[in-house]
Amino acid sequence: MNFLQGNCLVAQSGGPTAVINSSAYGVIKEFMENRKDEKIFVGLNGIEGILNNKIYDVDKLSMAELNIMKYLPSSSLGSCRYKLKNPEDSIEEYEKIFNLFETNNIKYFFYIGGNDSMDAAKKLCDYAKDIKSDIKIIGVPKTIDNDLVETDHCPGFGSTAKYVCNTGIELWLDTRTYYTNSIMVMEVMGRDAGWIAASSGLIKEAIPDINQLIYLPEVPFRAEKFLQDVKSAVAENGKLLVVTSEGLKNSEGDYINVDSNCYENDQFGHKQLGGIGKYLQTLIKDNVEKRVKLAELGVSQRCAMHCVSKTDLDEAELVGRVAVKYAIQGKTGFMVALDQVKDKENYECITRLVELNLVCNAVKGVPKDFINSDGCSISKKMIDYVSPLIIGEINSFGNNGLLKHVDIRKSLGHIEGRHQ
Amino acid sequence: MNFLQGNCLVAQSGGPTAVINSSAYGVIKEFMENRKDEKIFVGLNGIEGILNNKIYDVDKLSMAELNIMKYLPSSSLGSCRYKLKNPEDSIEEYEKIFNLFETNNIKYFFYIGGNDSMDAAKKLCDYAKDIKSDIKIIGVPKTIDNDLVETDHCPGFGSTAKYVCNTGIELWLDTRTYYTNSIMVMEVMGRDAGWIAASSGLIKEAIPDINQLIYLPEVPFRAEKFLQDVKSAVAENGKLLVVTSEGLKNSEGDYINVDSNCYENDQFGHKQLGGIGKYLQTLIKDNVEKRVKLAELGVSQRCAMHCVSKTDLDEAELVGRVAVKYAIQGKTGFMVALDQVKDKENYECITRLVELNLVCNAVKGVPKDFINSDGCSISKKMIDYVSPLIIGEINSFGNNGLLKHVDIRKSLGHIEGRHQ
Repeated sequence: MNFLQGNCLVAQSGGPTAVINSSAYGVIKEFMENRKDEKIFVGLNGIEGILNNKIYDVDKLSMAELNIMKYLPSSSLGSCRYKLKNPEDSIEEYEKIFNLFETNNIKYFFYIGGNDSMDAAKKLCDYAKDIKSDIKIIGVPKTIDNDLVETDHCPGFGSTAKYVCNTGIELWLDTRTYYTNSIMVMEVMGRDAGWIAASSGLIKEAIPDINQLIYLPEVPFRAEKFLQDVKSAVAENGKLLVVTSEGLKNSEGDYINVDSNCYENDQFGHKQLGGIGKYLQTLIKDNVEKRVKLAELGVSQRCAMHCVSKTDLDEAELVGRVAVKYAIQGKTGFMVALDQVKDKENYECITRLVELNLVCNAVKGVPKDFINSDGCSISKKMIDYVSPLIIGEINSFGNNGLLKHVDIRKSLGHIEGRHQ
Repeated sequence: MNFLQGNCLVAQSGGPTAVINSSAYGVIKEFMENRKDEKIFVGLNGIEGILNNKIYDVDKLSMAELNIMKYLPSSSLGSCRYKLKNPEDSIEEYEKIFNLFETNNIKYFFYIGGNDSMDAAKKLCDYAKDIKSDIKIIGVPKTIDNDLVETDHCPGFGSTAKYVCNTGIELWLDTRTYYTNSIMVMEVMGRDAGWIAASSGLIKEAIPDINQLIYLPEVPFRAEKFLQDVKSAVAENGKLLVVTSEGLKNSEGDYINVDSNCYENDQFGHKQLGGIGKYLQTLIKDNVEKRVKLAELGVSQRCAMHCVSKTDLDEAELVGRVAVKYAIQGKTGFMVALDQVKDKENYECITRLVELNLVCNAVKGVPKDFINSDGCSISKKMIDYVSPLIIGEINSFGNNGLLKHVDIRKSLGHIEGRHQ
C-alpha cells in the first residue's frame, strides 16, 4: 500500500436520499479494500455530530450489517443542516474538528452531501491548507434536487425521478377510474430547480396518451395562463395530471404560495392554507372543474428505497469508491462529478474531479431547451437526459415483505436520546 | 364442455386497488380455458357503463395485452360508484341490464368490488330469480379497506398493507435523520375500519426499536389521552411515528375532524383546514413538539403496483378464477371468500362461497383482541394475521424503469371523452 498512512472518516449531510448510504458504503468498502491497519470512522449527524465527537469505528459493524447498509434508505449515519462559519468567525470549531482529526490520526475525510455540504468541505480544505495539514478532503455528491453544477447529474435524483414517474403513472390510472371528469395535482420537491417535476415528463414514454401538464420554478407562473392550459387540456379528455414543483415563481422571481402577496392579489380563488399544490387545486376548483385531488408526495420521494433505481444506487456507490481512489492518490479539495459519455449507443457514465469552490453554493436549474415553448411540458432533450437514470430494479425486501433493516447507529454503539 | 352454454361478462366497481385487474384477468383466463365458442365481454365503468351499453369483446385484446393487464394498477375496466336501486324503484334499469344480457347471450356475470358492489350483485340475482333467468352471478371480492365480512381478508388489502408498512419504514428512517426531535404523522385510508393503519404495526417486525403510535376508528379518540401518549413516547426517544386512520371517532361515535363539533369544542389547537392527520399534527405542535411533519398517503396507497404483494396479487387472480369455476358448476348468488387454513406451519389460503346477502352492506372492523389495551398499538394476533398477506415481490417494470402499461380500454375500441 503506497498511500498516505492514516485513518479515514466519512459523514453524511443535508437531506436524505434513497441511495446516500450506498455512497457511504462505497467509501467504506473501497478504503477497507486498500487499508492495512488503518481505521475507518463514521461521523454521525455530519459536521454537527463531529463537533460533538460523535465518531465511531466501522469495525464494530459486521460485514452482514455493512452489506445491508448499502440498501438502507435515508441517512443511516444521521445528518445535519449545520452551516459551518468562516474560520475568522468561529476558529474554535475548526480547531475542534482538526484536533479530532489529529487525535484519531484521520488523514482522509469524505463528506457526502449537496451544495451546503460542499461549502463546508471547501472551508475545511482551505483551513487545512492554512495550517499546513496534509489531510485529504473529498466531497461526494448527493441530492435528489439534481441541482449541483459541474456534474451531469447527482446520485439520489435518479431514484426520486423513478419514484415520481411510477407514482405518477399510478395516480394517472387512478384518476381515470371513474366515468366523470377528474384532475390530479401532484406536488413534488424542488424549490429552486424543477428537475424532479420535469422528470415526470417521462411518464409519456409508458403512456403516450397521457394528458399531463408540468410546472417548474424555471418558468414564470401566471395564473391566467395556467387556467387556460388546464381548460384546453380538459376540453377533449376530462382526465388530467398536473405535476408541479413545490416552488413556483412569478415573473418577478417571487414564490407563488400562501405567504406571497401575489397569491392574495390575484383574481382567482380564496386564501387557502397549504403549499403550491393546494393553491393550484383551489384555482382549478374555483375556475374549471370541481373534481380535483391533490397528492403531495412529501418526504416519501426522497427515501423510497422500495422503488430505487439500480443505475442510481450503483452510481452512488461509484462516487463513494472513486472519492477514496482519488484521495489515496493525494487529491484534496475536489468533489467527484459524473459525466454521461456522449454519442454512445448505451448509457455510460464516467467520473472526474471538480474543484469544490466551483460547486459550493451554486444551483443548476433545468436548461431552457429541456422545456418546450408551451412552458408546461418537457422536450426530447430532457427525456434523453433522464431516461437512463431510472433504469434497473433492486429487490431490497426481506422474506417477510418488509425492507431489510439494520440500525447502523445502534450497532456502532450510539445511544439515541431525546434532544433537549 | 358440460356447462351452461353462454357468454360471460365481467366488470369492476368501487375504488381501485393495485390488484383488481388481476381478478379480472383471473375471470377472463379461466373462462377462456373452459369456453368453446363463447364470448367474453368486459363492461366498462361497472353497472353504470353496462347501463350505457359499454360492453366490449375481450378477443380484441392480444394475449400480450391481457398478460400485461394482470399487472396494471387501478381499475383498467373503469369503475363506478353507482348505487343500483331496488327493482320496484327503477324497473327500467333492471330491464335494460337483462335485455343486454339476453341480446348478448350473457349467462355469466362476475362483479368485482366491495360491499356496495356485492349489494348490486345481490339485487341482480334476486331479480334474475324473479324473472326466472338462468344467469349465474358471482361476486369477486376486492377492497383495500379489508372490511368485507365472511372472508378472512380481501384482495387488495395485502398490497396496501405492504405499501403502507414500507413507506412507514422509510418515513421513520427519514424522521431519524437529524439530531433534533422529530415527529412524523402518517395518515392512511380507513374511515370505518382501521385495518390499514393497524397493518403498519408490522413495521416493528423489521425495526423492533421503532417508536410508534397507531390510532384506529375502532378505539374512541380522546385528545387528552392522545397527547399523553405522544408525550410519553417522546420522553425517552425524541423521534416518533404516529399512524392514523383517516376516520377517527370520539366516544359518541362521531368523526373527529374539521367538520365535527368535537373538534371546535376541544381545548387544544386552533381551527385548521385538512383531515385528521393535519388535526393531530396541530395538536402535537401546539402542545408537545414543534417539529411535526405530515404524510397523507392519499390515493397512492390504493394503486401502488410498484410495491405490490405477490401473495395478494396471486389471491386476486385466484378469486377471479374460482368465481368462474363455481359459476360453471351452476352456482349463483354467492361471493368468493378466502380462508386462512389454521394450524399449518406455512400460510395457506383456500376459497369458499358465501351468500351475497350475508356480505352486502356489512362492515368488519379490527377485532378488540387485535388491539392492545393501550389503544395505540396492535397485538400479536394482528401481526400473525397480516404478516403472510404482504409476502412476495413482483417486478412489473419494463426495461425502461417504468411500470409496464397498456391502455386496455383503448385496445378494446373504447374512446374516452369529456364527461358533460
